[in-house]
Amino acid sequence: MTQPFRIAIAGLGTVGTGVVEILTQNEDIITQRAGREIEIVAVSARNKDRDIDISKYRWVDNAAEIYKSEGVDAVVELIGGSEGIAADVVRNSLDNKCHVVTANKALLAHQGLALAEMAEHNGVCLMYEAAVAGGIPIIKAMREGLAANEFSSVYGILNGTCNYILTKMQKTGRDFADILQEAQDLGYAESDPTLDIEGIDAAHKLCLLASIAFGVKPDFDALKTTGITHINATDIKFADEFGYRIKLLGITRRIDDKVMQILEPCLVPTNSPLGMIDDVYNAVYVEGNFVETPLFTGKGAGKGPTASSVVADIIDLARGKNIPTFGIPVNKLVEGQWIDVGETTSRYYLRIMVTDKPGVIASVAAILRDNDISIEGMVQTGRDPGQSVPVVLTLHEARHADVQKAAQGIERLECCSEKPCIMRIEEL
Amino acid sequence: MTQPFRIAIAGLGTVGTGVVEILTQNEDIITQRAGREIEIVAVSARNKDRDIDISKYRWVDNAAEIYKSEGVDAVVELIGGSEGIAADVVRNSLDNKCHVVTANKALLAHQGLALAEMAEHNGVCLMYEAAVAGGIPIIKAMREGLAANEFSSVYGILNGTCNYILTKMQKTGRDFADILQEAQDLGYAESDPTLDIEGIDAAHKLCLLASIAFGVKPDFDALKTTGITHINATDIKFADEFGYRIKLLGITRRIDDKVMQILEPCLVPTNSPLGMIDDVYNAVYVEGNFVETPLFTGKGAGKGPTASSVVADIIDLARGKNIPTFGIPVNKLVEGQWIDVGETTSRYYLRIMVTDKPGVIASVAAILRDNDISIEGMVQTGRDPGQSVPVVLTLHEARHADVQKAAQGIERLECCSEKPCIMRIEEL
Repeated sequence: MTQPFRIAIAGLGTVGTGVVEILTQNEDIITQRAGREIEIVAVSARNKDRDIDISKYRWVDNAAEIYKSEGVDAVVELIGGSEGIAADVVRNSLDNKCHVVTANKALLAHQGLALAEMAEHNGVCLMYEAAVAGGIPIIKAMREGLAANEFSSVYGILNGTCNYILTKMQKTGRDFADILQEAQDLGYAESDPTLDIEGIDAAHKLCLLASIAFGVKPDFDALKTTGITHINATDIKFADEFGYRIKLLGITRRIDDKVMQILEPCLVPTNSPLGMIDDVYNAVYVEGNFVETPLFTGKGAGKGPTASSVVADIIDLARGKNIPTFGIPVNKLVEGQWIDVGETTSRYYLRIMVTDKPGVIASVAAILRDNDISIEGMVQTGRDPGQSVPVVLTLHEARHADVQKAAQGIERLECCSEKPCIMRIEEL
Repeated sequence: MTQPFRIAIAGLGTVGTGVVEILTQNEDIITQRAGREIEIVAVSARNKDRDIDISKYRWVDNAAEIYKSEGVDAVVELIGGSEGIAADVVRNSLDNKCHVVTANKALLAHQGLALAEMAEHNGVCLMYEAAVAGGIPIIKAMREGLAANEFSSVYGILNGTCNYILTKMQKTGRDFADILQEAQDLGYAESDPTLDIEGIDAAHKLCLLASIAFGVKPDFDALKTTGITHINATDIKFADEFGYRIKLLGITRRIDDKVMQILEPCLVPTNSPLGMIDDVYNAVYVEGNFVETPLFTGKGAGKGPTASSVVADIIDLARGKNIPTFGIPVNKLVEGQWIDVGETTSRYYLRIMVTDKPGVIASVAAILRDNDISIEGMVQTGRDPGQSVPVVLTLHEARHADVQKAAQGIERLECCSEKPCIMRIEEL
C-alpha cells in the first residue's frame, strides 16, 4: 500500500476532538476509501487537557510551526478566527507546500483570495467543506457535483444557532433574549453570540458560496448583514398568522453580469421546504442552468457533522485530489459587480409600534403612498387605546430603498414608539 | 494549458443530446473548472438524425469500437440496457484503458462488479453519477463528501416516473392505469414502462447505493422488488385519511453484519420531507455515524439534470480524479449477507376487498390474530350490502412474513374478491 497520508491538527476544541475520534473509530473504512492510511503525526492546542487520548501524537507548542512536523502532507486548522494564530497556521502551511483543511469561514471570507493564490502558487489545496453548512457536502456539490452548470442562484439557511433560536421562539412564543440565554446554557450558542446572531457567520459562508457560484473574488465587505436580534415574539406570531416562518436567509443571485448578496431574516411560506427546516439544521438550494434546483439539507453544526466534513476533505487529499479553492483558477476570478440591495424589489413584512388612536394608520398609509408602496394587507389584533400596539402590514412588491425610506418616515412620526421591523417575504 | 480531455459519446438520445448541449453552452466555465478543454472527438448513435448539430464530430458506425477513436480519454455510454451494445461499449472501453462515464444503472446493477474489476485492473475510472437520482450528486456525496462515515442506512425516493404517477393519483383521485397513460403521452413514462412501474429501475439504483454504503458486492438478484401497479385510487385516499402519502421507497440498512434491502411502495407521513417530495423529484437520506442524516433532493430524471451529472463526471476525470467504482477497492468488497425481508418488522397498511356482510371482519380479524398480528385501526367507508367493498386496516408492528401469510389466508376467504394490498408504514 501507498505511504500513509500524514496530517497535523492545530486546534483540539469540539471539532478537532471530533476529527480525532472519527479517524480512530472509522479507521478501517477510511483507510479503504482513501486507499492509504491517514496518520495523525502531530497536534497542537492551547493545552493538553482533552477528553481524548492525545499522548500518542507528537505535541507542538506553537501551532504556527506545526507544518514543520516531519513528513506532514496536510495541516488541519481548527482554531478559528480571521486573524492571529489561525491565519498564521494556514499561511505558513500553504507557504511550505502543505495542503490545508480548515473549518474557518471567517478566515476564508476575509483572506480567501490571498490564501487561494498562495495555495495555487505552491501547488497545494485549501479545503474547507466544514466551513459551510456543517455536515452537508455543499462545497463539493458546487465545485464538483454540479460543476457542469452555470449557476444563477444559491440560497438557504446557513446558521444553525439562529435557526435554533428562531425555531424555539416559534414553538414557545417566547422572546429572543430569553431563548438566546437558554441556547447559551445548552451550548448551542457561544458565550459571545455576536457572530451568529448578527448574521456575520452566515454572511461569511454566503460570501464563499457566491465566489464558487459566480467566479467572483470573495468580498465580505460588499455584503450588508442583518441579524435576528430585533425580531420579537410578536413578529413570529404575526408571520405565523400570515402563513410564514421567519428564517435567517442567505441569498446570492446573478442578474445579468451583476451579483446580488442578501443576508437577513425573511419570511418564507410555513409549508415550503425552507419553512420546515427547524432547529440546528441547514438547507441550501443551488440553481443551475441544467440541473435546475437541487436542495441539500442536514445538520449545520455540531461536532459529528462538522468533523465528518473535515475528514472528507482529508480523504480527498489522500486520494490525490487537487481542486482550485473557489472552483476555478485564481486568475480567472473577477471582481464582483455587486447589486445595490436598495435597488432590489420584494414583497415586505412591516411591523410598527404605534399609539392606538384615530388617524395613526392614515399617517402611516400616507407615508407608504408617498414612497410608491402599496399595502397588501394589515392586521392589528387587540386594542389598547392610547398605548403603543403592534400593527403589521404586508406590502406589495416594492423597492428596498423605498421601503427603508418609508420606515424611517414612520419612525419619525410622533405616534411611533420604536424602529419599525422590515423583512422580505420570499416565496422560495 | 494542458491537453484537451477527449471524450467520445455513444448514444445521442435525450441524455446524450443534453451532454452535447451542456458542453457547448457552458463551454467557457467548464473549461475553467476542469482546468482544460473538454473535446468531443467522436459520436455514435442509431442514426444521424438529431436535433443538434453533430456534423463537426467524427461519426462512428459501430459504438462498440468508439474507444478506438484517436486519443480518446473517456467514453461516455448513454445507450442504456444491461446487455448488448451498451455493455460492449463499456467493456471494450475499460479494457482499452479508457475511462467510462455512464448513466446506465441496469448495466451497473447486473455487471457492476466485473466492470469495476476491469476498471481497476486497467487503472481507469467507471463513473455513474447520472445513474442514480438524476441531477442529485448522491454518488459523489457517498463516495466522497460523506466518506468519513460508517453508513447505517440509505433510503429515499429513487424513481421519478413512479413518483410522478403517485403524485398525480393523489392530486386527481384518478386510478393508476389512467395516469400512466397520461404520463406516457407526456413523455414522463416510457412506451414500455415496466422497468419503472415494477420498481426495477429504482432497485437497480438501490443496489448501487447499498454497495457503496456497506462495501458489499452489488447483487441485484438479492433484491425483491414490488412496483406500484397494484395501488389504486382507494389506497391513495385511505392513506391520505390516515395522514400518509404512498411513495415507492428504496431502503437499505445495515443491521449488525447483515444488510437489508427493500424496494416497495410504503406509507410515509404526509408532512414528512419524503411525503412532500412530489412529481419527478427524487430524495435520498444518507445516515452516517458522525454526519447524522443529511437529505439530498432534486429532479431525479430529465435531460438537463441527468446530463448535468454526466458532465460533472467528465469534469472530474479531466481534473485527474480516480476513485474506486464502489468507493473501495474491488478486493475489499464482501459478499452481502442479506437480511430475509420476511424477518423484518414494520407497521402495516392492509387493504382488502370483501363482501359487505356480517361476519366478514370477524373472519379477517381471526386470521390476523392467528398470525400474531394486532390491529391498530380499521376503516370501512360506505356500505354496499352484498357487494365487494374496500376495508382498510392498519396493523401494529408485525413480522413481514406473518403479514404476508395472513394476507394469503384472507385472500382464500370466500368473501375476499381480490389480492389484499399490503404496504409498510414507515415513520421516516
